[in-house]
Amino acid sequence: MATLRRQYAVARPVYSEDSFAEDHEKVYRVRKTMLDHLREYVTCDSKRAKNAVLSLLPIIGWMRIYRVKEWLLGDVVSGISTGLVAIMQGLAFSLLASLPPSYGLYTAFFPMLTYFFLGTSRHISVGSFPVLSLMIGAVVTRLVPDDGPSANFPGFKGLNMTQQRVLVASSVTFLTGIFQLAMGLLQVGFIVIYLSDTLVSGFTTAAAVHILVSQLKFVLGLVVPGISGPLALIYTLEKIFVQITSTNICDLVMSIIIMVIVFIVKEMNDMYKAKLPVPIPIEVIMTVIACGTSYGLNFKERFGIDVVGKMVSGYEAPIAPDMDVFKDSAVEAFPIAIVGFAVAFSVAKVYSIKHDYTIDGNQELIAFGVSNIFGASFRSFAASTSLSRSAVQESSGGRTQIAGLISAMMAMIVTVAIGFLLEPLPTSVLGALVIVNLKGMLMQCREIPYLWRRDKPECVVWVGTCLGAIFLGLDIGLAVGLGVELLTVIFRTQFPRCSVLANIPGTDLYRDRKDYLNIVEPAGVKIFRIPSPIFFANIEFFKDKLVEAVGFNPTRVLRKRNKALRKIEKLLQTNSDDITEKGLRNLFSQPTDDADMNMKEMDLSVDLKDLPFRVDWNAELAGNIGVPRVDIHSLILDFSAVSFLDISALKGLKMVLKDFIRIDVDVYIVSCDVYILEKLHSCMFFDDDIQTSIFFPTLHDAMLHVLEKHEGKIKSTVIPFNMSKLRRVRRP
Amino acid sequence: MATLRRQYAVARPVYSEDSFAEDHEKVYRVRKTMLDHLREYVTCDSKRAKNAVLSLLPIIGWMRIYRVKEWLLGDVVSGISTGLVAIMQGLAFSLLASLPPSYGLYTAFFPMLTYFFLGTSRHISVGSFPVLSLMIGAVVTRLVPDDGPSANFPGFKGLNMTQQRVLVASSVTFLTGIFQLAMGLLQVGFIVIYLSDTLVSGFTTAAAVHILVSQLKFVLGLVVPGISGPLALIYTLEKIFVQITSTNICDLVMSIIIMVIVFIVKEMNDMYKAKLPVPIPIEVIMTVIACGTSYGLNFKERFGIDVVGKMVSGYEAPIAPDMDVFKDSAVEAFPIAIVGFAVAFSVAKVYSIKHDYTIDGNQELIAFGVSNIFGASFRSFAASTSLSRSAVQESSGGRTQIAGLISAMMAMIVTVAIGFLLEPLPTSVLGALVIVNLKGMLMQCREIPYLWRRDKPECVVWVGTCLGAIFLGLDIGLAVGLGVELLTVIFRTQFPRCSVLANIPGTDLYRDRKDYLNIVEPAGVKIFRIPSPIFFANIEFFKDKLVEAVGFNPTRVLRKRNKALRKIEKLLQTNSDDITEKGLRNLFSQPTDDADMNMKEMDLSVDLKDLPFRVDWNAELAGNIGVPRVDIHSLILDFSAVSFLDISALKGLKMVLKDFIRIDVDVYIVSCDVYILEKLHSCMFFDDDIQTSIFFPTLHDAMLHVLEKHEGKIKSTVIPFNMSKLRRVRRP
Repeated sequence: MATLRRQYAVARPVYSEDSFAEDHEKVYRVRKTMLDHLREYVTCDSKRAKNAVLSLLPIIGWMRIYRVKEWLLGDVVSGISTGLVAIMQGLAFSLLASLPPSYGLYTAFFPMLTYFFLGTSRHISVGSFPVLSLMIGAVVTRLVPDDGPSANFPGFKGLNMTQQRVLVASSVTFLTGIFQLAMGLLQVGFIVIYLSDTLVSGFTTAAAVHILVSQLKFVLGLVVPGISGPLALIYTLEKIFVQITSTNICDLVMSIIIMVIVFIVKEMNDMYKAKLPVPIPIEVIMTVIACGTSYGLNFKERFGIDVVGKMVSGYEAPIAPDMDVFKDSAVEAFPIAIVGFAVAFSVAKVYSIKHDYTIDGNQELIAFGVSNIFGASFRSFAASTSLSRSAVQESSGGRTQIAGLISAMMAMIVTVAIGFLLEPLPTSVLGALVIVNLKGMLMQCREIPYLWRRDKPECVVWVGTCLGAIFLGLDIGLAVGLGVELLTVIFRTQFPRCSVLANIPGTDLYRDRKDYLNIVEPAGVKIFRIPSPIFFANIEFFKDKLVEAVGFNPTRVLRKRNKALRKIEKLLQTNSDDITEKGLRNLFSQPTDDADMNMKEMDLSVDLKDLPFRVDWNAELAGNIGVPRVDIHSLILDFSAVSFLDISALKGLKMVLKDFIRIDVDVYIVSCDVYILEKLHSCMFFDDDIQTSIFFPTLHDAMLHVLEKHEGKIKSTVIPFNMSKLRRVRRP
Repeated sequence: MATLRRQYAVARPVYSEDSFAEDHEKVYRVRKTMLDHLREYVTCDSKRAKNAVLSLLPIIGWMRIYRVKEWLLGDVVSGISTGLVAIMQGLAFSLLASLPPSYGLYTAFFPMLTYFFLGTSRHISVGSFPVLSLMIGAVVTRLVPDDGPSANFPGFKGLNMTQQRVLVASSVTFLTGIFQLAMGLLQVGFIVIYLSDTLVSGFTTAAAVHILVSQLKFVLGLVVPGISGPLALIYTLEKIFVQITSTNICDLVMSIIIMVIVFIVKEMNDMYKAKLPVPIPIEVIMTVIACGTSYGLNFKERFGIDVVGKMVSGYEAPIAPDMDVFKDSAVEAFPIAIVGFAVAFSVAKVYSIKHDYTIDGNQELIAFGVSNIFGASFRSFAASTSLSRSAVQESSGGRTQIAGLISAMMAMIVTVAIGFLLEPLPTSVLGALVIVNLKGMLMQCREIPYLWRRDKPECVVWVGTCLGAIFLGLDIGLAVGLGVELLTVIFRTQFPRCSVLANIPGTDLYRDRKDYLNIVEPAGVKIFRIPSPIFFANIEFFKDKLVEAVGFNPTRVLRKRNKALRKIEKLLQTNSDDITEKGLRNLFSQPTDDADMNMKEMDLSVDLKDLPFRVDWNAELAGNIGVPRVDIHSLILDFSAVSFLDISALKGLKMVLKDFIRIDVDVYIVSCDVYILEKLHSCMFFDDDIQTSIFFPTLHDAMLHVLEKHEGKIKSTVIPFNMSKLRRVRRP
């Protein structure tokens, strides 16, 4: 076997980082300072200006390559299919926002108009998104509750409840747009990466639970006031179950029938995806049937069910946002801005990869910001994209946002012309359609056992985000989830598994001493591997582990030695002839007197120069008190996995190294990252004790250096700690 | 030079991780599961029981070794000195808590009684701490403001303002104690490591600013209502400056004189520390003088200055905490619990190292928890330790908490017997003494330029915490600081400097290609170093950097190849004889039709088996459309600094590697941590594409393997990208 293998043969000088630098000249690279970056950023020339315009108006880019013959048909077909879905979802999701259904149609129309010009994604369908609608609804019902008075804002005077709600929704949407626009202009779109897949999965599952509960009242035909704030879900469920006996049977039966039919047809759509040219638009079909039945049999009068009712025909005048709502809902608008953008961006990314074009996160933020500001002025509520609607747009052949524009036109037609047809539609039908679409989101909880087995911290993030969002509300839940997520990163590096390495005989490889049978640890040398970055949260942990690995605390040893030295000096002063071993022994058996020395003196190196004899600290100086034994002469720290150091870690490390050096243990650091080495230089890490010569490029280089330095004194043994041969000897 | 150096010579087989495992048997180590840890934790035997009692009652430990002859005198002297300071600070800090001065004396007495039995530190002086007092004061003035009505709690009925305030302070303290006790029992004392030195420094500097502003009203003799909440500092300053003309000149002059004298004497104490047996107790002296002068000249009547006034003589009956206050102040009590413990623990740690004994964080939490609960029952407010007072206790010879007990007795004597002597003491004197002691805390802002030069993220943490705590209040500021601190950790790993490595000729060392002149990058091989852990926040960044480093996007290449393949197949079906180069060229110049293929098909490996000829993707297939060129055959990822991977990173990594493998680029991972390798196994990282044989122990091993595999095809050149010799050839 071994003969078949190629030989690994290396012969070169042993390098320390210093000698390596001597032999191999380094290229001097000018690093860009922050000022350079800034200068570069504000530099302007015609090319940059042109690019800036192009990136601010992505429509120019794709309009120039538009192939009318090949693409237009697909866009039109896709636009019509998407439009149908957008109308349905607009009506249904406005219930989540606690607004009359016609405002959902506005949301399917206005935001698209500006996104068409500004958006970089060619495939997402801009409009309502259930989670956002629900988050808007939470603000709406908080400021304008069903029961009890509205918030006491001057802007609410003279408005009825619906008008107040529309004002709140459009103001929050406006503010959301401002946040998104500001983030886009500040180029901070990258912050959405903090919303990891796990967090988003937990969050959307919780949102699905909220949506489910919020739609129960429509399905059951009950009147339940919208509740917001922590534990709102519990209180809502309580209110529902209190009046469960008043359930409208007609609503319930109709909802169940619709849910079952839609569910089955959707499953079939999924199963025969390959064979069907387009999925069966079962939701549209059911809506039309329900509308007709409700109108024909006069459900409203006969069974007292709630219907969509009078639709606003046409569009209303623009509306100015209310400053009091701004102030009151800023904390809620920010998560809406983040979630809205994050969802749209992640969907857009999927399609951009599939169709091989680039999207720009910051430009998307600008596009959604402007769209929301524009939409809010025309009374629509927060827009993002819905996964299912975008899938329809892309799969039915849409290639550019022309499809989106056509779907917006469909919504417009319903608003201005045929909206009255939807008036007899029961709200329970809309609720049922929302609920049946939650399947995918709710099924995400199947991830829990998978995550638990694979990666416990990630499971904690999922469960923490989900429970937080369910019980504390979506906005606070998102913050909780983010906090937990950030903490897990710290936690992963906080208690890493340090190990003591040893040499695999006959090779330059070093592995965990405990992992192999045939492994050699040279006597007097400890190799300690630090398997993670070092920073404020784990520097103490490392110190403890290092002390455990070497078997003694260097600070303690140093202080004990200094105390002992002080005593020897005292004795020398009183009776310099009486330095017999017995005398010393008696001396050390006296109780120590800590208060004699201050801390600074105890931390100095042990200065043995003035003594007339050599002291071997490892010999037994006095019965039970003596100085702790030090069984190693060299300590090698493997820094290969230390990806960063902060100031706390730097200070702590320096202190530990100094203590080791002062008790005559040589310290070496190997495989240190070049940037960390630079940082150590700039942070005054080096001084008389700690010098640059302690750095070596590889563990084996350092080990060879140590072996050379202690040649003759060392025997490699499998059992370490065997160096107590030297005894205290009087100087001649 | 080189001749003097020892030679580094290694000859061994080239190892992959797999072949290494074959040659070197690994010891099977049983890892403890969570269940084992739990079992171990709840196991009980007589030794463990004894240890548990000893650790719950640390007094037993030190009482057994108490040397009455040697230690008692020191403890008594230290207790008396500390007692004087404790009395002064108790009076002064109760002003910070917006309580009458006598409650500060309670705080110097009650908490010490239980800490004596339960505390593991022998040197800290338990009692009031200015930052805690201020945090308590913020809750007190929020619930019981100077102007305006108190909070509407049933428990407040029939109490005057002072009684209400005492109730609030003791309830908050009680709750703080509960939090601390709970944390101690749950063994989560380690969480204080999240309060890094930098954060604590910024936080205490902000606290000093708050303290300074809160004492201005006493020094100026003004009546300013306590304000709490965000921006309270600004509003307080505004209120002070509005009425600056009403300053009491007597108060101001007296304060300035006292501040100047105390400041000078303290500096002298510092300068002649070595020569003075004990520091001059200037604060006590000034208090006595001020008391006497105020009484003799009747300051209160003559100049209308505020004096301490009627002291409560003796102790009052215990008080039950108020549940409404609990509910209302839980958010504020938690940071109080954390800060109180963190400060005490850090001071205790310093002395435990100096005097060589161990302290136990969790036991300290229990001790402070019980002390606060006990103290709160007797109307004292939150206790921790003050740095200056502990320094007095330790430096004046205190060795055990007997000194603490004696200082508590001193406070008791003042409370029950001689408190009336302090009644004429002007509050401005107390304010002046508090302010003059802020010097050290305020001087911490000198760290800012130091941190900015050394470590910008850390500077951001300092400034963020400090500004947050100044403007938003101490509790929110602490939360903000913690958030910023956690984010900096993420940030440090989020945009790390990836590099492309190359070989230093004649060695087994690999360095950044751009850093050295004489460095060789073998043609067709890219070595990419990942210098940090990979997780959700940087996996995308790494993908981008990797794509940038290799010069092409593997996903894009794969899809383009699959599309091209589909076309070739189509052509073959229609006219299998017409496969000329020209025919192919025409084919590829036709517009691509994305919608033809679904995403799954595009992501499969390119299956060329059924084709009657070989396709070389690097040859020019068609003018401007063709498939992107791939100039490398091997990609080596250096994982030595990857200290952890999360699930997102694992999925992302797997996708990227698969794409590379599917476009026939061999991927190798070197220096991967053993625990990460285990995790990859348990998370189903490996499949038909990605196999365990891609792992190598060192970079050089992988490189030798690559060189062997591609022997003959490779020429080492300094300029890479030169492998486009092979052309498409018809199969015979």
